[in-house]
Amino acid sequence: MLRVPFDDLQATLHRDLLKLGLSPDRADRCARLFAATTCDGVYTHGLNRYPRFKESIRNGSVDVQAEPVMAGGFGAIERWDGRRGIGNLNATDSMQRAIVLAKQNGIGAVALANTNHWMRGGSYGWQAADQGLFAICWTNTLANLPAWGATTPILGNNPLVIAIPRDGGHVVLDMAMSQFSYGTLAAYSRRAVPLPVEGGFDTAGNLTRDAAAIELSQRALAVGYWKGSGLSLALDMLAAMLSGGLATHQITRDPERESAISQVFLAIDPSNLAGPYELTRIAEGILQSLRDATPTDPANPVRYPGEQTLRIRGENLRLGVPVDPAIWHDLRQDG
Amino acid sequence: MLRVPFDDLQATLHRDLLKLGLSPDRADRCARLFAATTCDGVYTHGLNRYPRFKESIRNGSVDVQAEPVMAGGFGAIERWDGRRGIGNLNATDSMQRAIVLAKQNGIGAVALANTNHWMRGGSYGWQAADQGLFAICWTNTLANLPAWGATTPILGNNPLVIAIPRDGGHVVLDMAMSQFSYGTLAAYSRRAVPLPVEGGFDTAGNLTRDAAAIELSQRALAVGYWKGSGLSLALDMLAAMLSGGLATHQITRDPERESAISQVFLAIDPSNLAGPYELTRIAEGILQSLRDATPTDPANPVRYPGEQTLRIRGENLRLGVPVDPAIWHDLRQDG
Repeated sequence: MLRVPFDDLQATLHRDLLKLGLSPDRADRCARLFAATTCDGVYTHGLNRYPRFKESIRNGSVDVQAEPVMAGGFGAIERWDGRRGIGNLNATDSMQRAIVLAKQNGIGAVALANTNHWMRGGSYGWQAADQGLFAICWTNTLANLPAWGATTPILGNNPLVIAIPRDGGHVVLDMAMSQFSYGTLAAYSRRAVPLPVEGGFDTAGNLTRDAAAIELSQRALAVGYWKGSGLSLALDMLAAMLSGGLATHQITRDPERESAISQVFLAIDPSNLAGPYELTRIAEGILQSLRDATPTDPANPVRYPGEQTLRIRGENLRLGVPVDPAIWHDLRQDG
Repeated sequence: MLRVPFDDLQATLHRDLLKLGLSPDRADRCARLFAATTCDGVYTHGLNRYPRFKESIRNGSVDVQAEPVMAGGFGAIERWDGRRGIGNLNATDSMQRAIVLAKQNGIGAVALANTNHWMRGGSYGWQAADQGLFAICWTNTLANLPAWGATTPILGNNPLVIAIPRDGGHVVLDMAMSQFSYGTLAAYSRRAVPLPVEGGFDTAGNLTRDAAAIELSQRALAVGYWKGSGLSLALDMLAAMLSGGLATHQITRDPERESAISQVFLAIDPSNLAGPYELTRIAEGILQSLRDATPTDPANPVRYPGEQTLRIRGENLRLGVPVDPAIWHDLRQDG
């Protein structure tokens, strides 16, 4: 494994983004998001995703110059048009605007149309929690998940993020509505290892743990079968209707050209409702009850979503951030 | 099957609630909620649940006289104390307050502490959608679901409701975080029929479709295994921290005495963001894409959450509402 210093990773991404035409400030923010995602251990959506991000700029799906503009609003909720700009910058701007609205109104929301893949959804949960706010945000995607009772992908996996601010490390849930991503299915399929639980149907319509069979059928499972199917639909309706943007069925099925998706960002500022000691007392009580639960494996206490992040981040800051040598080499050559 | 006219069901419930000490106005609202839930086909949380509701009044878990009071607030978000009052009335009041806040601010939220079981969660989704608003609400519950990686129940099944207003029938998702309720497990177990999908672990720690084995182990599955486990935890943290009320681990494990739970009600008023034609266009496009999906069974087109409600409601209003003869007989005798 190759490890590179965080600052080196960020600076290299920054140089490359400048060459792609981003302004220095936007290149800095975008580089930081990709570098932080890698450093936090979400490797699928950090540097490993960067070549595909560049391809989406090259093929015109992402406009590097476009910045979001407000398209409407009333009180504590606003509509923004992402103008097919860079997904992680649009998402950061939208969450930041929701945070401002929440500071003014206790709760704030931004519905964002016409944006692009936000890469790691958890980033925007951490963004709000780092400022002491709760956050709920989600995105729609191209169709990659059959509805319950259908054989063809018609729903998106529509990741949902919930963040709870906490001094000892935020609780950040970042879950797609599919039980397994196609990336995970590919990894199991390559290794010819069965999935830990059923992940979809085979072409004969039987539930299976065989990742290759699901890649073939394209019939991945939603979390909770019919339940996640309904939740995915509801999130798509909320995102498209509140933002006025596209719904999953209107987004191109070509993963290389996925664009103009819809997102919602909610932030809640607890500072006028509760004191920090009350919030800490409640959060720590809940997390202690998790630690007190009898684990199925005594060596593995029950964990909360995001619990590993600070440890991985610390390790990667200390030892260097793990990178794919080929991707890193290409980036250094380009940059 | 015994069917009784809706008005008869509601009037009989109303008389009984008056005898339990509710004021005429509150008895009327509470009776309407139980009758409407039954009429809409959610039989588990309508009349069939009423005897247990009465028991919770008798054993002191529910205070029929208590009305919610505001406990704090800032801008578009408020904290209310349910004072251990009647769960479905507290929930209706809280959603109505969130709706008022949303009409003033675009979005509104109420965090409710110290309340009781809200019976059918979907009721509050329908309440908002009937007034043209989107709604998201959830409740915590007593611990009835093991966290992923634990053998003992430590999470609640924490039902989550999302409602999308629509002229042709609202889309209302009402999903608990458990794959199957203990009521459903009991029904499969009585009939000795396997569950349609894996519903939990047996006492040996193997995933199983055997409902009786799950009743024995008390190891029901969360939707999506680790994913629903994380979502249930996040909903509990939001509900307890925002309301200042109890978290799942603090709620009595005795189902007959479950009380002082925490809930969150969010409402979004789209009327200042989008015109009704835009909203209808987007919603109908999404639902049409569901209808266009290839069904696994040609006789069963894909359905959206809540799709059956208006049909069942119409049928039960026309033919009479199906009731359990024994429960109905007892209620008539008491009333």
